[in-house]
Amino acid sequence: MTLDAVLSRIDTDLPQATERLLELLRIQSISTDPAFADHCQTAADWLVSDLQSIGVTAEKRETPGHPMVVGHVDGDGPHLLFYGHYDVQPVDPLELWDRDPFDPQIEETAKGPVIRGRGSSDDKGQLMTFVEACRAWKSEHGSLPCRITFFFEGEEESGSPSLVPFMEENADELKSDLALICDTGMFESRVPSIVTMLRGLLGEEITITAPDKDLHSGMYGGVAMNPIRVLTRILASLHDDQGRVTVPGFYDGVPELPDDIRQQWQGLAFDHGTFLGDVGLSKPAGEQDRTPIEMIWSRPTCDVNGIWGGYTGDGFKTVLPSKAHAKVSFRLVGNQDPHKIRNSFRQLVRDALPADCEVEFSGHGASQASTTETTDPAFEAARVALTNEWNVPAAYVGCGGSIPIAGHFQDILDTTPMLVGFGKDDDQIHSPNEKYDMESFHKGIRSWARILDALT
Amino acid sequence: MTLDAVLSRIDTDLPQATERLLELLRIQSISTDPAFADHCQTAADWLVSDLQSIGVTAEKRETPGHPMVVGHVDGDGPHLLFYGHYDVQPVDPLELWDRDPFDPQIEETAKGPVIRGRGSSDDKGQLMTFVEACRAWKSEHGSLPCRITFFFEGEEESGSPSLVPFMEENADELKSDLALICDTGMFESRVPSIVTMLRGLLGEEITITAPDKDLHSGMYGGVAMNPIRVLTRILASLHDDQGRVTVPGFYDGVPELPDDIRQQWQGLAFDHGTFLGDVGLSKPAGEQDRTPIEMIWSRPTCDVNGIWGGYTGDGFKTVLPSKAHAKVSFRLVGNQDPHKIRNSFRQLVRDALPADCEVEFSGHGASQASTTETTDPAFEAARVALTNEWNVPAAYVGCGGSIPIAGHFQDILDTTPMLVGFGKDDDQIHSPNEKYDMESFHKGIRSWARILDALT
Repeated sequence: MTLDAVLSRIDTDLPQATERLLELLRIQSISTDPAFADHCQTAADWLVSDLQSIGVTAEKRETPGHPMVVGHVDGDGPHLLFYGHYDVQPVDPLELWDRDPFDPQIEETAKGPVIRGRGSSDDKGQLMTFVEACRAWKSEHGSLPCRITFFFEGEEESGSPSLVPFMEENADELKSDLALICDTGMFESRVPSIVTMLRGLLGEEITITAPDKDLHSGMYGGVAMNPIRVLTRILASLHDDQGRVTVPGFYDGVPELPDDIRQQWQGLAFDHGTFLGDVGLSKPAGEQDRTPIEMIWSRPTCDVNGIWGGYTGDGFKTVLPSKAHAKVSFRLVGNQDPHKIRNSFRQLVRDALPADCEVEFSGHGASQASTTETTDPAFEAARVALTNEWNVPAAYVGCGGSIPIAGHFQDILDTTPMLVGFGKDDDQIHSPNEKYDMESFHKGIRSWARILDALT
Repeated sequence: MTLDAVLSRIDTDLPQATERLLELLRIQSISTDPAFADHCQTAADWLVSDLQSIGVTAEKRETPGHPMVVGHVDGDGPHLLFYGHYDVQPVDPLELWDRDPFDPQIEETAKGPVIRGRGSSDDKGQLMTFVEACRAWKSEHGSLPCRITFFFEGEEESGSPSLVPFMEENADELKSDLALICDTGMFESRVPSIVTMLRGLLGEEITITAPDKDLHSGMYGGVAMNPIRVLTRILASLHDDQGRVTVPGFYDGVPELPDDIRQQWQGLAFDHGTFLGDVGLSKPAGEQDRTPIEMIWSRPTCDVNGIWGGYTGDGFKTVLPSKAHAKVSFRLVGNQDPHKIRNSFRQLVRDALPADCEVEFSGHGASQASTTETTDPAFEAARVALTNEWNVPAAYVGCGGSIPIAGHFQDILDTTPMLVGFGKDDDQIHSPNEKYDMESFHKGIRSWARILDALT
């Protein structure tokens, strides 16, 4: 049987596939920091060359930011597109890593072998599961099973500024029957999952200026306005005592969960005790009248992702700083309008400014939430394929994260996105010591082979 | 007349005196950062050698931290002690300096020549005014005018941890009739001043931990407690809407200003519009029922001097951090007890912690306020000497800063401190582009010669 041969080839070639992934992980393709722009180019070149090695007509496509990688193979049957991103998060705080984040290695752990390194799970390891499935297919059959377009981005971790223009300019080339996206995880690290509900994301950086230079708090303390005091008052006012976000109009367009989805989620028996316990917490901190799974999948949030001002080094310095800064993000659901919320947030900040203070804003991304219909029979076929690989019934789930591209495929290309991924909750993506389970990598490759077989 | 000869020598030797100060300013004696410990040793060695060059028996005295420099010359008349500190503040943010902070230079400005560099005003330039006055005196007379002890510290900018033990162990050696301290400024940059009222200082660093690792706000945002949210709520609660500090018991021991002092201060006609306007502000930000001069001289304050947590680099990272940090300081007046306030502050923070959060505290210094009696006739003699040098009636003033050593001289050595200094409001001490006016340096040296003459 043809699928068995491909699966067997995947098992045999796993060491070589792992070596290729380690090679890609060594490239420091941090997209958010301009100092790493050359590394992003290197990663794109590596992918072009790797795709060419399996017969894909691939090329690097420049953008005003980091390049896209686009590849095509012709074939019969459905036209599938596969999306992944080759850029990674910054690595700080570096001192919390147990190894060089860009010197990846296979480590044996109590839970089995893992691939340790920045980007192993988010998203290079996931991206390569699909490429390796195609390689094994090609080895066994001499060609891929259908027409496939490969579409890799290098700006996912920095707000994807070039993505929408690129999709709009190349819509005819990218439009397909189904867009496969591999950038999500397994429910509770054990249930293979197709994500059908994604939160949107809005980022804002704010800088508050009070005195026009840093002052000595001995000379000016008590009489000069301290911008940290202003900033903390504003940030503290963003949630009420019940954990609700106070930005005016914030909950406009937030739907109540439909009964059928609520029942499906209850069936998943989410164990929030373990979910929180894994990171040293016990009590859900969001809106106190919502269940934990609602908080992360279907309720909007506001978080401060970074704050800084004044003297932050060793020892003490009685400075009264001129400026204080924060990075604030909002996760959005339903029909919340990111642009309205951005304006409302900025107005809230301006209204809260005391005399003599100024504020500057800088926006980082603004994507709406998205929900995917699963009426296309491809969804049920893929769900069965995943169930067969993992021996656990696969599920349609929500996801607290934001993958704006899912919405763009729908809106710009009229192409239905299908999000399948193999990340685990303890992968520490965006954190020190990121890893990807060897099981995720190996069975992830096998999963895609089964899905390709099921869809063609 | 002997004084005239000394003053004339000071005028003639100013270029050489300036060169010596520039040499001292090139030493990177940042005390708060352990990486600069060797530079502190170098600065102490330089001072020992410089004191020896004017016939002072001087030596470096090791402490558990940075060394003291102690020197003696015998003589008739009163036993004077002179105190200054050779350590300096850190230089960050370095990018806001117009020149290398440790490559000092004389710059011509619209207001006259200035000595630009870290420590030029705080306190190396001020310290050297006294040394240079002694050098000129010695040149003209072959000896100094009385018994003098020189006492230089290298930890003033980092909470003076070794100072009290050193003073206690060497009390007999350091006890004197009057302690001259040169670490203050001129009232409104024009009135020569003797500071008789100093605020105390209490520093606290707090670290709040919520999850035990950095998390991805997509996965955990909304359900996991964010320590920045906790920290900003606590810091925002430290002042009420009227600018009063809310730490329980904070105002215990805060005296109302005596009528005579209030009248004297009114006589100074403090121009808070200019004071604030110089730094881009217009409205006093402290307790709304107090005058600006009370706010900075006789009222206690609370300021956040530093805050940090999460991602603070370029771009955006949707991290939900494990920890958030702040450095908080309190300026104290009257009989406020720093230890009681520290305990009350820590209790306030602990009481405000939500479930799953932990806090760690680290104390930085705890000094009471001090007020000096001016009944010793030396005060009036010094005031007249200052008036003669500057042609402006010298004043007894308060000071918003904290110079704990003033209190230590009184408490530990039973020696009255006299604080005379020549700093200007725009010296930018503790900030980028610190400077000391050449006028301050030149007339400061001359002022000390006049004071030595008046006291002996």
